[in-house]
Amino acid sequence: MPQSFSFQIQTRCTHTHARAGVFVTPHGIVETPRFMPVGTLANVKTLTPAQLLDTGAQMVLSNTYHLHLQPGEKIVAAAGGIHKFMGWNGPILTDSGGFQVFSLSEMRTVTEAGVRFRSPHDGAIIELSPERSIEIQNQLGADVIMAFDECPPYPASREDVVAATARTVRWLERCIAAHDRPEAALFGIVQGGVYPDLRVAAAKKLVEFDLPGYAIGGVSVGEPTDLMEMVVRVTTPILPDHKPRYLMGIGTYREMAQAIASGIDLFDCVIPTRLARHGAALVAGERWNLKNAQFREDFRPLDPSCPCYTCQNFSRAYISHLVRAKELLAYTLLSIHNVTELIRFTTRIRDAILGDRFTDEFAQYLQVQS
Amino acid sequence: MPQSFSFQIQTRCTHTHARAGVFVTPHGIVETPRFMPVGTLANVKTLTPAQLLDTGAQMVLSNTYHLHLQPGEKIVAAAGGIHKFMGWNGPILTDSGGFQVFSLSEMRTVTEAGVRFRSPHDGAIIELSPERSIEIQNQLGADVIMAFDECPPYPASREDVVAATARTVRWLERCIAAHDRPEAALFGIVQGGVYPDLRVAAAKKLVEFDLPGYAIGGVSVGEPTDLMEMVVRVTTPILPDHKPRYLMGIGTYREMAQAIASGIDLFDCVIPTRLARHGAALVAGERWNLKNAQFREDFRPLDPSCPCYTCQNFSRAYISHLVRAKELLAYTLLSIHNVTELIRFTTRIRDAILGDRFTDEFAQYLQVQS
Repeated sequence: MPQSFSFQIQTRCTHTHARAGVFVTPHGIVETPRFMPVGTLANVKTLTPAQLLDTGAQMVLSNTYHLHLQPGEKIVAAAGGIHKFMGWNGPILTDSGGFQVFSLSEMRTVTEAGVRFRSPHDGAIIELSPERSIEIQNQLGADVIMAFDECPPYPASREDVVAATARTVRWLERCIAAHDRPEAALFGIVQGGVYPDLRVAAAKKLVEFDLPGYAIGGVSVGEPTDLMEMVVRVTTPILPDHKPRYLMGIGTYREMAQAIASGIDLFDCVIPTRLARHGAALVAGERWNLKNAQFREDFRPLDPSCPCYTCQNFSRAYISHLVRAKELLAYTLLSIHNVTELIRFTTRIRDAILGDRFTDEFAQYLQVQS
Repeated sequence: MPQSFSFQIQTRCTHTHARAGVFVTPHGIVETPRFMPVGTLANVKTLTPAQLLDTGAQMVLSNTYHLHLQPGEKIVAAAGGIHKFMGWNGPILTDSGGFQVFSLSEMRTVTEAGVRFRSPHDGAIIELSPERSIEIQNQLGADVIMAFDECPPYPASREDVVAATARTVRWLERCIAAHDRPEAALFGIVQGGVYPDLRVAAAKKLVEFDLPGYAIGGVSVGEPTDLMEMVVRVTTPILPDHKPRYLMGIGTYREMAQAIASGIDLFDCVIPTRLARHGAALVAGERWNLKNAQFREDFRPLDPSCPCYTCQNFSRAYISHLVRAKELLAYTLLSIHNVTELIRFTTRIRDAILGDRFTDEFAQYLQVQS
């Protein structure tokens, strides 16, 4: 692990693989397990950094693919790096662009060298490769950067997944060779689709590189939840115990609790801010549509037990009014609550692990689906 | 003036009619002259009350017309009034709906009784009258409420303006009779179009009612700036010296400075938040379109001398990026700056009046246009 990074496990759950830890980065600590809000375009949608800090956010994710297209990594670098650019002084993780290239871009050509695709902004040909992704991420200047991977869709044939997983390993070697910035920790990404043996083999291969952290990618791409949970259960134990483990793109209550029980430390998902922009709140494990008539004259806070600014100051009726009136403030207030809610779910699990009450308090999320 | 209200003049400019004062309301003080941000639908667009407080806002305006249509005054009253509903504990002023009925609604019928129009939401017939407007405003629960007036368009014939002005005076009598809430101060509105003698006559008539404050309405309806300034110059001296004076709908630098020189204390305008939503910043008296290429790599704050959260934390390049990416945070950051900027313009004038430097420091705004 680079000098300015460390990961200490504070407490382990006596019944599961769950652990409470502290991941130290050059921009501060991340107390794990923890949900990371997504700031795709160098901002967590509708939230100022001050509001984001109040949600309990520690590490924030941003996207290489999106920032490369707009405003471009040169502008971010000229601003003094992504922390200074977006006004977030805490830890930042950038995704490599691999996932977006394979899920968002059109007319792409994949070769061993890398991926060519057309910019959705101006149609220009753009090339991303392991070296280019690392170069862009180093210009952005995040604390944690991700390896450039090939993320197969779901469903994909075993043959295609074998090829993508092998390429991801070869690309990882090139990422490691291209990475030379000690202020950033490069995490590898385990692929392998829904094939448990491929996941295990890929994880074993990646562990040989002794990286400062590992992610499980290629989940949340359309596969059934039980397959995703199986992938996490078989893959996580292979990853080194003393390194942070990050499950990419996951952010529902049950999936996070299950993954934490398997030994996962970090999560990210766009769901809290996306739901907010659709006028929905995450409350008590449910999704509430604030446009519903039942909220028009409901003067209670969204969640009376929630410490967030929204719940401390506004009623369901007020937020319902703002949503109906399409006032942008609605999306800010709902984002504050939803991001707080998911982070709080993971910090409540963390507290439970520290007190060895995880399986008692979160039993409802921990049954394995039959 | 109702018991819980007072208006003290602290200092007068020795060269103009400008004065620095303190208007005391049940929800706090308003140091005048001061710009009031507009929270049409019980929120100043894109700003939380915490962000609004940081702009220097004291009194905030909201709109009876809009709130009657959505969510309806009953819901606001059931929430405990508009302060509690929107989470703003400072002074609030509600407009009567008169201006909006005449400028926004279609298929309206005006009689001596009041105005009938179709709801733009559901097409239902809605009636507003002096009594109804006061009843709604009292349910909303603002500190300052406005008389229901007939606001003639520009241009309008002298005959039409005479009729509207006379009706506004008759409607004022009915507003006074309908108003029975000592926690609210009812302000009268001087109409009279661009006819100085009609303005003077209307002002004299209104003064007879000894109201706690007076507004000049029916400006900023399309008339040339010099006519508006003339109206303010001839009308303001007629209004009682020891009562707050409010120029409705005005919020440009020059117009505010000129009006303050005539003895105006309060202003409101949607311009700072509307410009923000169009990606524009108010800086040094100019309007900057943040989409312009010149800002892409400009890493200075919008205004290095501005104390607002936006200028203290973000660059023009970052805001330009957010505007180009259509990120909603752009509108929040620009609203924070633009509202701060207009309030700060009036508090700088206030400070200058207190130090008797108004005509020196704001000379550029005070020449009368030829």
